[in-house]
Amino acid sequence: MKEIYAFEEGDGQNRKLLGGKGAGLCEMTRLKLPVPPGFTITTQVCDAYYQNGKSLPRGLMAKVSKHIARVAKKTGKAWGSPDNPLLVSVRSGAAISMPGMMDTILNLGLNDETVRGLAAKSSNPRFAWDSYRRFVQLFGKVVFGIDDRLFDNVMNAKKKESGAESDSDLDAGALEEITASFKKICADSGHTFPTDPTAQLELAITAVFDSWMGERAIVYRAKNKITKDIAAGTAVNVVAMVFGNMGSDSATGVVFTRNPGDGSRQIYGDYLQDAQGEDVVAGVRTGKHVSEMKSEMPESYKQLEKTCDMLEKHFREPQDIEFTVEQGRFYLLQTRNAKMNAASMVRTSIDMVNEKMISRDRAITRLNAEQLEQLLHDMPDQSEIPKYEKLATGIAASPGAASGAAIFDVKKAAAMGKDGHAVILVREETKPEDVPAFFESLGILTSRGGKSSHAAVVARGMGKPCIVGCADLKITETGCTTSGGGRISEGDIITIDGSTGSVYAGSIPTIKPEITPEFRRILDWAAKAKRLGVRANADTPAAAALARKYGAQGIGLCRTERMFNQSDRLVLFVKMIMAADKAQREKLLKRLGRLQKSDFVKILTAMEGYPVTIRLLDPPLHEFLPNPEAQAAKVKSMEGGRGSKASKSDLEEARTVLERARELAEINPMMGHRGVRVGVTYPEIYRMQIRAVFEALAALAKKGVKAKPQIMIPQISSVEELDHIKQIYDEVRREVEEANGGRKLSVNFGTMIEVVRAALTADQLARTAEFFSFGTNDLTQGTFSFSREDVEGKFMPEYMDKGLLEQNPFQSIDRSGVGRLMSQGIRLGRESRKGMEIGICGEHGGDPSSVVFCHNESLSYVSASPHRIPIAIVAAAQAAILQKAPSKGKKRSKRKKQ
Amino acid sequence: MKEIYAFEEGDGQNRKLLGGKGAGLCEMTRLKLPVPPGFTITTQVCDAYYQNGKSLPRGLMAKVSKHIARVAKKTGKAWGSPDNPLLVSVRSGAAISMPGMMDTILNLGLNDETVRGLAAKSSNPRFAWDSYRRFVQLFGKVVFGIDDRLFDNVMNAKKKESGAESDSDLDAGALEEITASFKKICADSGHTFPTDPTAQLELAITAVFDSWMGERAIVYRAKNKITKDIAAGTAVNVVAMVFGNMGSDSATGVVFTRNPGDGSRQIYGDYLQDAQGEDVVAGVRTGKHVSEMKSEMPESYKQLEKTCDMLEKHFREPQDIEFTVEQGRFYLLQTRNAKMNAASMVRTSIDMVNEKMISRDRAITRLNAEQLEQLLHDMPDQSEIPKYEKLATGIAASPGAASGAAIFDVKKAAAMGKDGHAVILVREETKPEDVPAFFESLGILTSRGGKSSHAAVVARGMGKPCIVGCADLKITETGCTTSGGGRISEGDIITIDGSTGSVYAGSIPTIKPEITPEFRRILDWAAKAKRLGVRANADTPAAAALARKYGAQGIGLCRTERMFNQSDRLVLFVKMIMAADKAQREKLLKRLGRLQKSDFVKILTAMEGYPVTIRLLDPPLHEFLPNPEAQAAKVKSMEGGRGSKASKSDLEEARTVLERARELAEINPMMGHRGVRVGVTYPEIYRMQIRAVFEALAALAKKGVKAKPQIMIPQISSVEELDHIKQIYDEVRREVEEANGGRKLSVNFGTMIEVVRAALTADQLARTAEFFSFGTNDLTQGTFSFSREDVEGKFMPEYMDKGLLEQNPFQSIDRSGVGRLMSQGIRLGRESRKGMEIGICGEHGGDPSSVVFCHNESLSYVSASPHRIPIAIVAAAQAAILQKAPSKGKKRSKRKKQ
Repeated sequence: MKEIYAFEEGDGQNRKLLGGKGAGLCEMTRLKLPVPPGFTITTQVCDAYYQNGKSLPRGLMAKVSKHIARVAKKTGKAWGSPDNPLLVSVRSGAAISMPGMMDTILNLGLNDETVRGLAAKSSNPRFAWDSYRRFVQLFGKVVFGIDDRLFDNVMNAKKKESGAESDSDLDAGALEEITASFKKICADSGHTFPTDPTAQLELAITAVFDSWMGERAIVYRAKNKITKDIAAGTAVNVVAMVFGNMGSDSATGVVFTRNPGDGSRQIYGDYLQDAQGEDVVAGVRTGKHVSEMKSEMPESYKQLEKTCDMLEKHFREPQDIEFTVEQGRFYLLQTRNAKMNAASMVRTSIDMVNEKMISRDRAITRLNAEQLEQLLHDMPDQSEIPKYEKLATGIAASPGAASGAAIFDVKKAAAMGKDGHAVILVREETKPEDVPAFFESLGILTSRGGKSSHAAVVARGMGKPCIVGCADLKITETGCTTSGGGRISEGDIITIDGSTGSVYAGSIPTIKPEITPEFRRILDWAAKAKRLGVRANADTPAAAALARKYGAQGIGLCRTERMFNQSDRLVLFVKMIMAADKAQREKLLKRLGRLQKSDFVKILTAMEGYPVTIRLLDPPLHEFLPNPEAQAAKVKSMEGGRGSKASKSDLEEARTVLERARELAEINPMMGHRGVRVGVTYPEIYRMQIRAVFEALAALAKKGVKAKPQIMIPQISSVEELDHIKQIYDEVRREVEEANGGRKLSVNFGTMIEVVRAALTADQLARTAEFFSFGTNDLTQGTFSFSREDVEGKFMPEYMDKGLLEQNPFQSIDRSGVGRLMSQGIRLGRESRKGMEIGICGEHGGDPSSVVFCHNESLSYVSASPHRIPIAIVAAAQAAILQKAPSKGKKRSKRKKQ
Repeated sequence: MKEIYAFEEGDGQNRKLLGGKGAGLCEMTRLKLPVPPGFTITTQVCDAYYQNGKSLPRGLMAKVSKHIARVAKKTGKAWGSPDNPLLVSVRSGAAISMPGMMDTILNLGLNDETVRGLAAKSSNPRFAWDSYRRFVQLFGKVVFGIDDRLFDNVMNAKKKESGAESDSDLDAGALEEITASFKKICADSGHTFPTDPTAQLELAITAVFDSWMGERAIVYRAKNKITKDIAAGTAVNVVAMVFGNMGSDSATGVVFTRNPGDGSRQIYGDYLQDAQGEDVVAGVRTGKHVSEMKSEMPESYKQLEKTCDMLEKHFREPQDIEFTVEQGRFYLLQTRNAKMNAASMVRTSIDMVNEKMISRDRAITRLNAEQLEQLLHDMPDQSEIPKYEKLATGIAASPGAASGAAIFDVKKAAAMGKDGHAVILVREETKPEDVPAFFESLGILTSRGGKSSHAAVVARGMGKPCIVGCADLKITETGCTTSGGGRISEGDIITIDGSTGSVYAGSIPTIKPEITPEFRRILDWAAKAKRLGVRANADTPAAAALARKYGAQGIGLCRTERMFNQSDRLVLFVKMIMAADKAQREKLLKRLGRLQKSDFVKILTAMEGYPVTIRLLDPPLHEFLPNPEAQAAKVKSMEGGRGSKASKSDLEEARTVLERARELAEINPMMGHRGVRVGVTYPEIYRMQIRAVFEALAALAKKGVKAKPQIMIPQISSVEELDHIKQIYDEVRREVEEANGGRKLSVNFGTMIEVVRAALTADQLARTAEFFSFGTNDLTQGTFSFSREDVEGKFMPEYMDKGLLEQNPFQSIDRSGVGRLMSQGIRLGRESRKGMEIGICGEHGGDPSSVVFCHNESLSYVSASPHRIPIAIVAAAQAAILQKAPSKGKKRSKRKKQ
C-alpha cells in the first residue's frame, strides 16, 4: 500500500484514495498546470490511523520527510532553513467535500528562526511576521482547539493600541508582538508551540485525521449517507506555500470559469491583491471583480484565462478554482466542478454542446434532474429572503412560493379569492369539503399531516404551493400562534415557500418560471434519448394541457374523485352518500354521471392521441362527509343555546349526516372500505363511472377525436375482485356499444398494484388486467406498515437522524423492500401476459432515483405530476444513457446490490 | 363415456362420478349386501345436460330402459305391468351431500292400471293406493313445483270428512279418492300427470338435474365453496322399490352403527313398522328405538346387527344407514359415514383402535381438529337452547358460553365481579383501561369491532367467552336496545355463546368441559406423530400452566403490554406516558421494571425447561390513554355546569391528559407509532423490559430453575431497526452479567415477521435475528391492506357472499398471497441462517388448515392460544401423517398449486 503520492504520481480520477482536493491537484500537475509542488497522504492512511487506535502508521513520518525533501528541491528552498525556509499548507480532503471538517493550515514551517529567514529572503519583514502570526493562530485553533476569539481579542487590542484601522495597518513590529502573544495563548492553554517544522507537520496531519471523527463530521456523514464505501477517511494534502501577500504584484482569487448565476461564458469571481487566500473567503477585505484584473495584472489575467479554458476542456465541466499570483507568477491551488443553479446548468449544457466540448448525452447526464423543478415554479428571490422574518418551518409538500393574506376560514378564503384577493389558506388540516377554497387560494399551509395528507396531495395535483405538518404553528379557526411566541392574525400577509417548507412574514418578491429555449432544447434531446414513457398525473383539462406542454405522453393517473370535489358536485356526491335507498342513489348518480362524462370528454380531447388512464373512485365515502366530531359540535350548536336559528329540518338533516358519518367512520381508514371495496358494495357508483368513460369515448368517436381512455381499478387485492368489476365493465360496454349502433368501443381494463397482495398475485391479476400501474405511495405504506400521515411528521425525522432509514421511502423507492416486491410483480405479470404495459403512478414517478429504478426494471412508463414531467424525462434519459455506457452501468448495478 | 352404471358395475370409491349416494349403493352391492337392484346415471350426464342447453343426451332414455329391464328381471317384476308392476325410487346425489336439492321420488311407475296390479299382487289395496297417492303428491311437488299445502289441504279435508284421526285411519277407498283429487291439482296447475312409467322416469330425471341449478343449491355451493372441480353435477339413482309399509312384518328405519351422542358401541336410531322411509324422516309418526326391534323383529334385527358390523369393518368408520324390511326381508337403502360430535369422534377413535379396526394414524386423521374445541369450553346445553329467546347475533370472537347480569359500566362490572356476581360486560367497544373489568367478568359482548378488536384479542387471551361486532345491538353506557325492538337493561340476565356469536335472554344451563382419558390418549398419540412444535400464546402464569397441561412445549408469544393492563400497573404506565421528562419517565419505568421482572419469574418458572418468547411492548402509547373525545367530554363536565366538584388540580391533570391523548392520536394507528418504533423513540421503555428479562433469568439461574427466555421485537421493518435495539440488548446483557458476577446469561434475540417488508428482507434480518416468529394477523392486514376491525364487521360478509374471498384470511392463512410471502421469508431467512428457528404466533397457529400449511413450509412451531393447543397438536399430527402417505400427499400438494 502506497501511503503518499507526490502530485505528479497520483491518479487524478481516484478521488476515493486521494480525496477530491488531492485528485484535483494531481490531475492539474499531470496537465503541466502551474501547481506548487506537494503530495497527498491517502485516505487509506486515515483509515489505518483509526484501525491503529489513533496512531500514525510506523514509518509514515519518515516517508513524509522524504517527500518534503523532494518538494524543497523543486522549490529551491529548504525545510527548516533559517535562510530560505520551505513553508507548506496542510489541507484535509475526503472523496466527498465535507463542510464541518478541518480545512487548512497555512504557512506551516515557520518558527522564530525561519521567520527571520523569510523576512530576509523576501526583504519584507511585515510579510514574514504576518505569515507567522496567521500560522500560530490557525495552528492554535485547529490543532490545539483553542477558541478563536482569544486570538481576535489580542489583534483588536493591538489595533486599538496602535491606532490601526485594519489588519494591514499593523507593522512588522506590532505583528511580532502579536505573534508572541498568540504563542502565550497556546502556552496558557497547556500546549507548547512546536518549533520543529516536522513536529508541526506531524501534529497537523494528526489533527486532520482527528477531524474525520469530529462530531460535526460524523453527523454530516450520517445525514448525507456517506458510508465507508463512499469515503473511508480523509486525505491530507501538503503543498508548498506560494504567497499572494508579497506586494502589489501578488494576488489571490477564487473564480468560476462561467457565471454560475446565469451560465454565461465569462470568468466570474473575486480577487485580492497582496492577500492570502483566507482573506477572500473570510471577507476580511472585499475582493474586486476578476474582470478588473485584466487591466491591473494583464499578464496574470491572460494566464488565468488560458488556464480556465484548459481546465474546462479537460474536465468538460465549468470549474470553480483557487489561484494565487506570487510576485507575478501564476499558481493554481484548487479546481473542482462548479456548483450552479438549474438555469445555469441548462445553459452551460447547451453552450458546451455548441462549443463541441461535450456530447448531447453528457449534456443530459451532467444535469441534476431534481434541481430542474426550480425552473417550473415561482421561487422567492433569494437575495430578498434575509430581509423577512421567518415564522416557522414545516414539511415542504408542494413546491413554489406564494404570498397573500392568511385566512383561517374556508368559506372566507374561497370568497376572498373569488374577489381577486391573494389568499393563503391556513388550517390545522383540510378535508375534501375544503377543496373549493383550494381553487381560490394561492397556497395552503397546515399544521398537521405529512406529504400524503389531503392538503398536500390536492395542492400538488393543482400545482399550488403547500406546506403541511408545520408543528411550529398552533392554528385555530381564528388565528395562529408561532412557537416563538408570535402571532399570525387573519389578513396578515405571509409568504410560504413550498419548496423549502419555510413560512415568512410579509410578501417576498418571487421570480417567475419560464421554459427557456435552452430548457426546451434539453428536454427535446432527453425525450429522444429516453426509453421509458413519461405520463402525467392530471385530473383536469388544464393540468392535462400543462402536462402535454411539458412533454407528457398521456395521462397515467386521472383521479375521478377529484372531480367530485368541485363545489357543485360535492353537494350532489354527499347527497348520493346520504341516499336513503338504491333508487335515490341511482338518480343522483345519473346526474353525477353526466358531469363526469363531460369532464372525460374535455380531458380526452386535451390528450388526443395519447392514452388517458382513468382511475375509478378510490377514497372511502366518509372522506366526503364532515368528520363526526365537527358535525357533532355543529348539531350541538344548532340544538340550542342562545339564538340558534336552525330550522327543524336543517337540524334533522345535520343529525342524519352525523349518524351516517359515524356509521362510515373507520379506525384505520387507509386499510378500510375504499377503492374497489366501495365498487363491490356500491356497484352503482362504479357502473356510473364506467358508463361515463364509454359514453365520452362514443361521443368523441363520432366527432373523429382519437381518444384513448383506459379504466383502472384501485385497491385491488385479488383477481376475484377484478373479475367482479370486469363483469360490470363488460355489461356496460355492451350496452353503450348497442346504444351507439354496435360501434366497437375499445377501453383497456387494468388495475393498480398498490396493495401488497396484488404484487404477490400479479400472475393471477394479469389474466384479467390488460395493464398494471404501481401505486407506489400505498405500496410503500403497506410494505412498511407506515401510515404516511402518522409517521412523516412524527417519528420519521428521528429515524432519519438515527440512520434507521437510508432515505424517506415516500420520496425514493425503497429498493430492498418495495423494489423487491415490484420486481416480483413485474415478473409475475409479464409471465402471464407477455409485454404487458406496466407503469407507476405514485409520486415516485417524479423522483429521479426512482425513475432510474423504473427504467432498469423495464417498466413501460412513469407518471408524474405536471411540474415534475421535465424531471422525469431527464431522469429517464439519464438512465437510458448510463445503461448504454458499460463502465458506468456496471458501477451503478454494483451499488444497486448493496 | 359410460353414462349409466348398474350398482354391481360402479366403483364404490368414485363419489365424484356417481355421487355419494350412488357410490355407497354400488359399494354395498359389491359387498353382496342386500341392496335392491338399481342403477346410477352419472354426474357427467348432469354436466352434459347443461352443456346441451338443458336437454338429456341423445339415447340416454334408451339406455335407461335397458337398465330398467335388467332391474325388472332381477326383481321378477315388469315395468308398467298391470299385473306385477316394477316400481322405483328416484334420488339425487352429488359428490357432496347438499341440502336444498331435490331428494327423493318414491313409487314411480304407478298409474291407474299398475296400482290395481300392485293391489292384487300384494292383496293389499290400501297399501297400493297409499303408495299411489304418495307418488302423485311427491311427483307434483318435485317435478311440477306445486305447493305442498294444496295436497295437505285435501288430505286434511278427507280425514275430517271420514272422521279419521291419522293418515293410517284412511281406507283404500278414501285414498283412491285422494289420489284422484291430487291428480286434479296437477291438472289445475296446467300439468297432465303422465301415465307412462318411462315418461314419468324421464321427467323425474330431468327434475333432478334441474334441481342442481335451483337457487338454494347454487347459494349452498357458493357458500360452501363447492366448485366444479369438487362436484360437477348431481347423479340420479334409480332403485327398485321395496316396501316397509306392507304390514307388521315390514318396517323402515334410520340408524347409526354407534351412538353419535357419546360414541358408545350400540346401534342407535329409530324404526317404524308398516311405514315408508319418509314417515320416519318427516316425523309423521314417532319411531321406536331400534333396540325394541330385537324382540319385535328378532330375525331382522340380527341381520341389521350383522350388516352394521360388516359396514363398519369395510368403511372403517361408524355408519349412518337407512334400511327397509319388506315382509321379513331385509334391505339396505343407504350408508354413509356418521356425523358425530367431538366427544363421540374421540371415543370411537380410541375404541376402533382397541378393536383393531383402524390404526393410530387413522384414529388421528379421521378427527375434525377444529371440532375439538368443543371439548375445552363451556357449551350451552343444546337441548335447552330452544327454550330461550335469541336477542342478537354478533361475531363469535372467543369461544365458550357464559351467563350473567349485563353490566354496561366498566367500574361497576369490575366491582360486582369482585363481589362474586356473575357479570357479562356489555360495551360498544373496549379499551386497555377496561381490562381490569375483563378479569372480573365471565364474558364480554360488544357492538363494534372485529375478531382482532381489543375486546376479542384480550378475551381470547384470557380464555373468556366473547362476542364482538354485534351490530344488532345499540349499546350505550346505560342500556341497550336490540334491532328487534327489545331492550337489555342493567342487571338483566343474558347468556352469550362465543362459539356461535348468539346472545340469549336468560341463563342457559351449560355443559362443563373435561379432558377425558380418551382425549388425553389421542393427544398423546398426536404429540408423538407430529413433527411441528406447538407452543402457546400466554401472558400470565395461569395461562402458561393451562397451556402446559394441554401439551404446549413452550410459550411462543408472551405479550408484555398485557401485564400493564392490570389495574395497579395501568396507573403507573399512564403516569410514565405523561412524564414531563426523561428523568421522571425513567423513575416510573424502574418501578414498572420490578413488576415485570416478577411476572417473568413466574411465567418462566411455570414453563421451566421450555422456551418462553417475550415480545416487547407492541401497541401505540395512545392505546393506554382515554380516547380524546371521551376525555374532552370529561374535561367539559369538570369545567362547568351545575355542581362540578372537580378540584383545580384534577381539572389541570385531566386537561394535560387530554392534550397528550390528542398529541398521540393517530389517523391509522395500525400503521403508526407502535412496536419497535416506540422502542426507538423511547429507548428507556425497551431498555427496562430487556433488563427485566435478564434480571429474571439471573434470579432463576441462582435458584437452579432452567428458564429459557427469548426476546422478540415487534413491528420490525428493517435490519437497521433490529440492529439498533440489539445494541441496547447487548449493553443491558453486559450490565446484568457484570452485576451477577460475570455469569453468562443466554437469551435469544429475535424478531416478529409481521410487517411485509420484514418478510421481503428476511435475509438481512436473519443476520441479526436468532429466530423469527410470523405475526400472521398483522401480516395478513398488511398484505391485503385490510384493517381487520374495519373490514370484518363491515364489507367482508358481502365479500364472502359474493365469492370474492375464498375464506376469511384472518381465520386461515391466505396461501396465494400471505402464504407466498411467508414462503419467501422462510427461504430468505434460512439462506442467511441455516436451520433457523421460525414459528408463527398469529391466531392462525390454532387453525387446522393453517397448521398444515406451517407443517408443509417446515416451520419449527406454531403458537396458539391455550384452548387451541389440542387442535394444533392434532392438526400437526394429521399433517405429518398425511405427508407420510404418498398418494394423499400428492393430492394435497396438487391442490396447493391451484
